[in-house]
Amino acid sequence: METIIRIHDVYDKNCPTRHALDRIADKYTVLIIVFLQGRPRRFSELQRIITGISQKMLTQTLRSLERDGLITRTIYPEVPPRVEYALTPLGETLIEPLAALRQWAETHIEAVTAAQNTYDEKIS
Amino acid sequence: METIIRIHDVYDKNCPTRHALDRIADKYTVLIIVFLQGRPRRFSELQRIITGISQKMLTQTLRSLERDGLITRTIYPEVPPRVEYALTPLGETLIEPLAALRQWAETHIEAVTAAQNTYDEKIS
Repeated sequence: METIIRIHDVYDKNCPTRHALDRIADKYTVLIIVFLQGRPRRFSELQRIITGISQKMLTQTLRSLERDGLITRTIYPEVPPRVEYALTPLGETLIEPLAALRQWAETHIEAVTAAQNTYDEKIS
Repeated sequence: METIIRIHDVYDKNCPTRHALDRIADKYTVLIIVFLQGRPRRFSELQRIITGISQKMLTQTLRSLERDGLITRTIYPEVPPRVEYALTPLGETLIEPLAALRQWAETHIEAVTAAQNTYDEKIS
């Protein structure tokens, strides 16, 4: 009997875990997933809260997240049709690690900005 | 007396916290920071472990991380010169949240792959 042991290696560009990491380690993924926490949101709400994202990039990111099983897209037959995005149970498991990233950025921003200023003075 | 309250909003494209998030929510940042845990590494080691990264992209990412105060770059005057990258104390505070992302990718990869297959069958 042959035993196949599957080794996941997130550093290997051919490993599916690397592709999964590529998707979730993405600024727009973080902002979307964290914003969908608690309740479904419409496309226009996402576009309004995530300033600077283009319509095309938002559409592409939402489609990837849907394909990865992290969010659902539901169309309600109204006039005009209402489209809502919501986290799946799998997507909800991402809330905690992604919220930790957001928290890190908000906690350490002064230290990062100070480091940038020091670096820029040193090289100029 | 005027009180200035600084509100950080990671969703605002003009907020420094958004820029910090843009930097850390990046696949190569995750791979580099996690790999530097424990001890300094040379450029060639990073290039070998992170398969698929170009020399230019690795150089750019390392420079950004140095500017953000997350890693140091030390040149040892040998022949040829040895250059080592190491985490700063600030960079070490990122280990835990970034390792959690890597852990998520390795834990949930089967669910993500299954969702992708279902999605691709549905639309084809």
